[in-house]
Amino acid sequence: MALNKPNAIFAILLVASATLFTNSLRAQDLYQAFRQGWLRKAEAYKPRLIETIKQPVNLVKLEKEPSAFQGWKAVSSGGTDKLYNASLKTESGIVADFGEHLTGYFTFTIKALNGTPDAPVRLKFTFGEVPAELSVPFDPYTGTLSRAWLQDETVTVTEMPATITIPRRLAFRYVKIEQLGASSSFDFHISNMQFKATTSVATTPPALAAGTPQLIADIDRVGLATLKECMQTVYEDGPKRDRRLWIGDLYLESLANLYSFKNNDLTKRCFYLLAGLSGDDGILIANVFETPEPHAQVGGRLLDYCFLYNVALKEYVTATGDKQTGLDLWPVAKKQLDIARKYAGEDGMMDYLKAGKEWWVFFDWKDGLDKQASLQGLTIYTLNQTYALAKLLGKESEVADVPALTKKLKEAAHKKLLDKTTGLFVSGADKQISYGSQAWMILGGVASKAEAQKALNALPVIKNAVHPGAPYMFHYYVAALIESGLKNEAKEAVENYWGGMIKKGADTFWEVYDPNDELKSPYNFYPVNSYCHAWSCTPVYFIRKYPEIFQR
Amino acid sequence: MALNKPNAIFAILLVASATLFTNSLRAQDLYQAFRQGWLRKAEAYKPRLIETIKQPVNLVKLEKEPSAFQGWKAVSSGGTDKLYNASLKTESGIVADFGEHLTGYFTFTIKALNGTPDAPVRLKFTFGEVPAELSVPFDPYTGTLSRAWLQDETVTVTEMPATITIPRRLAFRYVKIEQLGASSSFDFHISNMQFKATTSVATTPPALAAGTPQLIADIDRVGLATLKECMQTVYEDGPKRDRRLWIGDLYLESLANLYSFKNNDLTKRCFYLLAGLSGDDGILIANVFETPEPHAQVGGRLLDYCFLYNVALKEYVTATGDKQTGLDLWPVAKKQLDIARKYAGEDGMMDYLKAGKEWWVFFDWKDGLDKQASLQGLTIYTLNQTYALAKLLGKESEVADVPALTKKLKEAAHKKLLDKTTGLFVSGADKQISYGSQAWMILGGVASKAEAQKALNALPVIKNAVHPGAPYMFHYYVAALIESGLKNEAKEAVENYWGGMIKKGADTFWEVYDPNDELKSPYNFYPVNSYCHAWSCTPVYFIRKYPEIFQR
Repeated sequence: MALNKPNAIFAILLVASATLFTNSLRAQDLYQAFRQGWLRKAEAYKPRLIETIKQPVNLVKLEKEPSAFQGWKAVSSGGTDKLYNASLKTESGIVADFGEHLTGYFTFTIKALNGTPDAPVRLKFTFGEVPAELSVPFDPYTGTLSRAWLQDETVTVTEMPATITIPRRLAFRYVKIEQLGASSSFDFHISNMQFKATTSVATTPPALAAGTPQLIADIDRVGLATLKECMQTVYEDGPKRDRRLWIGDLYLESLANLYSFKNNDLTKRCFYLLAGLSGDDGILIANVFETPEPHAQVGGRLLDYCFLYNVALKEYVTATGDKQTGLDLWPVAKKQLDIARKYAGEDGMMDYLKAGKEWWVFFDWKDGLDKQASLQGLTIYTLNQTYALAKLLGKESEVADVPALTKKLKEAAHKKLLDKTTGLFVSGADKQISYGSQAWMILGGVASKAEAQKALNALPVIKNAVHPGAPYMFHYYVAALIESGLKNEAKEAVENYWGGMIKKGADTFWEVYDPNDELKSPYNFYPVNSYCHAWSCTPVYFIRKYPEIFQR
Repeated sequence: MALNKPNAIFAILLVASATLFTNSLRAQDLYQAFRQGWLRKAEAYKPRLIETIKQPVNLVKLEKEPSAFQGWKAVSSGGTDKLYNASLKTESGIVADFGEHLTGYFTFTIKALNGTPDAPVRLKFTFGEVPAELSVPFDPYTGTLSRAWLQDETVTVTEMPATITIPRRLAFRYVKIEQLGASSSFDFHISNMQFKATTSVATTPPALAAGTPQLIADIDRVGLATLKECMQTVYEDGPKRDRRLWIGDLYLESLANLYSFKNNDLTKRCFYLLAGLSGDDGILIANVFETPEPHAQVGGRLLDYCFLYNVALKEYVTATGDKQTGLDLWPVAKKQLDIARKYAGEDGMMDYLKAGKEWWVFFDWKDGLDKQASLQGLTIYTLNQTYALAKLLGKESEVADVPALTKKLKEAAHKKLLDKTTGLFVSGADKQISYGSQAWMILGGVASKAEAQKALNALPVIKNAVHPGAPYMFHYYVAALIESGLKNEAKEAVENYWGGMIKKGADTFWEVYDPNDELKSPYNFYPVNSYCHAWSCTPVYFIRKYPEIFQR
């Protein structure tokens, strides 16, 4: 995801938050005693990237094909010999296929073929994660995010032979090479290309059980590739875009990592980094950057992500037994609960309207999603998980109010949000029915198992139910299906949704996927979507944590 | 100048010449005993470039103005503070003026102004020697030379703050900065720009005589700037384009250098380099490149430039007394005379049609110029000058045939090319009258002083006389005026022609200048012309060699 600023409300919040931060909170740093230690630990756990040199495996032609993903398909057009041996003048527009999604640095060697180079050459390289990125004109650019995220780079070559590395880090499978300027006195060719691929993944996860269905195996493989590409020196959200650590992505990546690569140092690094870069008021900031020195996005707060930090930490400590990290970061988890306390009303309902005015409340890229039920459910879920963490760490006394608060919120939710007639949870003044509301009510434990099954089984036939907008929300839907014991439905949901991407040729899972609208973009220009996105890797977690559901 | 390959005849010659070179001449290298020694000396005389850090001095706006050169003028719009303190988003398109023509490397520093940089930024820098280069769209590009000569560079900035150097060497006075991609979450600004200017000129020439007319002083100043900018590790033809050593440019630059900067090592380096990179048949190649290792343009032969090497060497030895260099390179000068012997007919006339089929015969960027008289005159001039060099070096016996050959060519020219009625020299089947023909006949000594004066005085009133196309040919015209004793006319010619560029705002003299057609381009797109071009620096030579004509 990305801060999508044309969202005017959020723009105002950013400014308000930044002002608050500067004027009143700088004076007193809640974590003064811990902050530097957390940042030192974050640095100590920073992984050394593993570099692998890759070569293109094939040349492809991009062809219009209505049935292909986004209308474009890549068709093999021969080996790379054709490129390496022919004049680039005649081959301008050629596309090389590296055969897999890669993240890192692109280097090419250019040489004269005949004649004497007597003028500079101008080349354009366009890197794409999916075929449409190489086929759709980028300009005039209509996207709401920076045009510079698009990976087209123009290079002036003043001398030959030359070996040139494009400075920016790239994420791609395909590269298109165009000649934009050359002298008629000489021919030249790309004589070599190589890509220094980077990741911090150094391990190979165990094989799935024999007999795992092929589609599930494919989903697992692509999920692992997605996760591996996003695991750099932090858990990035997407290696093409936005290339940074967001708490929401960290949560899902760290879950998948626990059941696959088990790179726990990277998880710890991210926990400590986020803690070290939290606001002086102790509240987390949703996204942070590593360079030139670690820093958080000024004003970059997101309510649901503060809560998910606690959930992620609890899952990590539970799975690894690493209580030391839990104890180090307990002050942060404890502090985030203040958000729940602040917005929980006397009636046991979260004041979602007030929270929505004061915070970016995200949950999904879905216009029109009412977030009352989701926020209520997530708050209860967070209270539960954080209290479980407190118990693991022997800290229950510090959050002694939480069980009562949880109970109050749960009971209020059951009373006010469950429509006893339909068995579905509703949200907001218009009593909206959505996948998100059902998922979060169930994960929060508001529904009994029978109620949960009823709600989830009713959903597919409800006209106008608000569907998940992105794989991120789909995760919580699948988690709710599993939580409710709807095992077959969970497997089918994964097979249909992530399997749908597989069937459309995904090498890595996409940031945004609407089976009915392949051109959907939260940023008004689908080529700027990320097509290798952390929050979409979660089938790895489901498939490997629940082999009895998925690996049979 | 540049090899302008759409000239189909030349394209064929290049191939023919390259084939000849490969198949038959490689076996026997005429200069086997000398070549490596020449190249070692060329390397030994390579200057260390002097680097100076420059800052922009002003901001300018480019305005349409029909009376300005090429229709565009730069108008001051304030100090650079405005750029350094304001968001580049609001200032996109801003133009910084460095106040003088510079050659070297551009570095800028970019910083966030407010907000947190959360996306890459895309910037375009366009560097121009003259205002129109920043104002005229480059695309769709119609030029016949590589589009990559045009100095527009797109840079993706992935992190801030950053200090970034554009890799290619640039030649410019003005730089336009455009923002092509940015995030709405933060503002940023260019906080610094600097330019590492390079030249091998380390000396300051003497001041002109007190009382030198202002216009002549201005022409001298701009000529010196032109020469300084072109003096890098060789005498380049133009620092923007083509950035290489051509014999014709070397000749005029070395003349101007003898009377100004006196960097004789650079002249020697170029003589040795050209000798070392000549063909195995002993014939010079017109243009050479320094990197990645010194090499000549395959097939890059140009008849008149072979001759001018001899003339340049003779002038250098005469002015410096450096006989050692003359003796070292005498085999080369002697060998070039074979070209004269080959095409000199029994009737004493050069077979210009045959030569024109077998060579690129240049003389000027002027469509339709008949080259018979120019070739005849240059050949005689070269024979004279080379024989004078032989005498200086005590080598007359090695070219004993030259005086008789010279006499024969001179008499034939006088008989066949001088129209006794008009007093003008004619050229070719159509008896074309041109400035070039008069100039070269006079420089060759074909005309008596009286005949020369008559011809040159008659020229301006001849309808359809072919005028010089570029400053290069204008040099020979002025030289002929001086040679003929037409001192005032010489001064007036310099004042009108180079003074015309001064009046149009030239910081350096242009490759191509037609007072009646400011958009003239040998390459079909005037922004790709070079606006700092070596062969235009020659007023420095005239003004300083002939103070009695110019400095009064």
